[in-house]
Order: sequence, then C-alpha cells, then structure tokens
Amino acid sequence: MSRILGVLGGMGPAATVAFLARVQALTPAQGDADHIRVVMDMNPQVPDRNTRPGDAEAELGRMAERLKAAGAEVLAMPCNTAHAQKPGIVAAGLPFIDMIAETTAAVKATGATAVGILATPGGEALYVAALIEAGLTPVVLAGEDRAGFMACVYGVKRGDVGVENRAAMARLAAALAASGAGAVIAGCTEVPLLIAQVDVPVPLVDSAEVLAAACVRACKE
Amino acid sequence: MSRILGVLGGMGPAATVAFLARVQALTPAQGDADHIRVVMDMNPQVPDRNTRPGDAEAELGRMAERLKAAGAEVLAMPCNTAHAQKPGIVAAGLPFIDMIAETTAAVKATGATAVGILATPGGEALYVAALIEAGLTPVVLAGEDRAGFMACVYGVKRGDVGVENRAAMARLAAALAASGAGAVIAGCTEVPLLIAQVDVPVPLVDSAEVLAAACVRACKE
Repeated sequence: MSRILGVLGGMGPAATVAFLARVQALTPAQGDADHIRVVMDMNPQVPDRNTRPGDAEAELGRMAERLKAAGAEVLAMPCNTAHAQKPGIVAAGLPFIDMIAETTAAVKATGATAVGILATPGGEALYVAALIEAGLTPVVLAGEDRAGFMACVYGVKRGDVGVENRAAMARLAAALAASGAGAVIAGCTEVPLLIAQVDVPVPLVDSAEVLAAACVRACKE
Repeated sequence: MSRILGVLGGMGPAATVAFLARVQALTPAQGDADHIRVVMDMNPQVPDRNTRPGDAEAELGRMAERLKAAGAEVLAMPCNTAHAQKPGIVAAGLPFIDMIAETTAAVKATGATAVGILATPGGEALYVAALIEAGLTPVVLAGEDRAGFMACVYGVKRGDVGVENRAAMARLAAALAASGAGAVIAGCTEVPLLIAQVDVPVPLVDSAEVLAAACVRACKE
C-alpha cells in the first residue's frame, strides 16, 4: 500500500529540498518504483507567517486544496512556524501529519524532562504549549540569543551555510543544554542545514527528520 | 516577473531532488521570496519508458494536466529518456522546456564537433537525432559499455553513489573521449550524481544543470 504525499513547501526552499531528500533516504527502495509519489507546492511567496498570519493561513488553505486536487492523500509541511496556520490546511479535509506533535512525541521518547527549543518565536510558542501539554519543561533561548537564532536562520535563507553560521547555531544549542535542557529540538527546518547531532552535547531531535519518518510510515504502511 | 515552474519528476527521485537543488542554487536570492515557486509531481510509478512507452506518455500527459491545474505556467522534466513522450506533455498546452534541445545547444556552444553521449538507449536515440540535426557528430558507447552504463544508472536508483560506481561512470566518459568525443553530454539525470567535470578529460555538459539554468531564465526573466 502506498499513499500519495502532498507537501506544502517553500518555507524555506532549501529546507524543503532537504526534507524531500530525507523522505527518500528513509524509504526502503531497490528502484524508482519503491519510492513515495510526492505532489508538492513549493511556494516561497506564502505571506509572512509572523506579520500576516491570516493571509498566510488563507494561502496555505488554497495550497492544500490544490494538492488535494492534484492527488495528495496525506499532507505534510516541513515548516514548524507555519503550523500556527494548521486550521487553514486541515480545512481541505485530508489527514495532516503534524510536525509539532510528532516532534514532541519523539523528544518525550528520549526520556529528557527539560527540553530546549531552537525555533522562531512563532514555532517556539507552538513547542512550549505542546511540551507543557506532554508534561515536559520547555527551555527557551534568552536575551540576545533570540535575535542570534533568527540571524542564523535568515543566513540560511540567503544561502549561508558556512562555518561561522554553523558555529553560531551550535553555540545556541549548547546554551540550551547549559540552561538545563536534557534534549534539544531542532524546531525550525533551517536548523539541520547548520548543525547535526555531533554538534550538540545532548540528544538533538530534528523535526525535519521526525516528520520525514512519519511521512514514510503514513505513505508506505 | 516570476512564473510558476511545473516539474514532472520522479524519474528518478534522487535526480529530481538534485535538480530542485540546482534550480535554487542558480536563482539569485537574498531570501525565500526571491525563489521560484515550483509545483511538482514526483511520480516514481510512471510506467517504464522503454517497455511501455504508450502508457508512459498517457501518464505524463495526465501529470502535465494536473500541474497546469495546480498553477504551473512552464513545464520541465528532469529525465532525458522520458522526452520521447514529449507529445503527451505538450498536449497540456503549456510551454515545455525541452532538455534535449537545451543540452544540444549548450554542447554546440562548447565548439566540439564530435560529441559523446552518456544516456540510456532511449535518451541516446534522442540525442543522436538532435546532434545530427545540429550538424554535430554523435559518439556513443560501444559493446559492453552500454550494459555497464545501465548498471551504473540502476545502481544510483538503488542508492549506490559509492566510489566504485563513480569510477565506473568516469571510465565510460573517458572511453567516449578516447573514441574522439571533444565534449561529453551527461544525458541522463543520474550521471551527475556520480561524476562531475573534474572526472572527465573533455568538457562535460550536464543536462540537469542546463535544464535548471533554462528554468531559472524562463521563470525569473
């Protein structure tokens, strides 16, 4: 049994391509035909999720409808922040694999009780609520580190995945661990374009990897 | 001015993801919104283009129609072999960026007169015709090298991009140069997943790179 995966992408574009590569890497395949069919709308022009949330939700809803018309049977969106606009997406009537919920479950499974969050302000708010609901304690970036995180993310969106940007993101993850986090969520799909588990002193739960694995389960089982 | 690019993908999946990454790399961008919107149908279950060409053409036609309905304004397909089914795609009525034609023009611009072809039998036939039409002399793989080429390609489709598979593809490119080719076309989108210009003693014209550049021109200008 195989389902067609619909991807609401482009937020950002590089993270979306990395997500597609992860879905493929996690799919057991001996040839093309074993892979999941993916219909995607990579739309880098979705209105800003922070400054125009209503417009963003309406646009994501239209994207979901068009993916459904194009054959999608399950929807996923490799952007944590835009999950605040989830109601617009689920209105299309397809199952939606919730990246925040899947990642929260994965970090709970590490056994950590205090969990650091690397995310945009909007994504952080979603994870804080989800972690508390799951009985876990959120640990968030403080002071100048909040602006530093966004500088790293916008660097990736400009194409900067260089050594300095990587080091800056690693330092932010270390700061969360130093603040008591027993695990850290890479809760923005740009994060894994800069750091991996080897760069972080506690378990790193990568939301893009978690979502890709959930998509493979949903579409191949 | 920006147009929405429709991608008929999945032949194969890894080559499609690499193609999307190339389009992004070739797009001048300071942030997400500068990137091209891409609607894609990555369909790894398109019927075999060699054994079921009629079924493949019908399916590619349906994919083109659905991409058009999803908003695509220009179509491209990062699979050389499937260009034999181009009539089914253009029937949808959108401009189609022809990878064979673009690559033939690019190899002619190198100044080479004898041109080696690394492609499947179906893709090779398309390039032989296009090169002759352009006044160039095709140089094709001979004897066991033809089966060797397909073994390399199916290796990539199984996920094998290891050192032995890379060396085998480099040897095939060198054989074409030794047979008199003044340039070599990487005329199958799996080829650049194994070798790059540095591995080939004459200019290597990568059809995926050529198509990605043509897509950026068509959608951003």
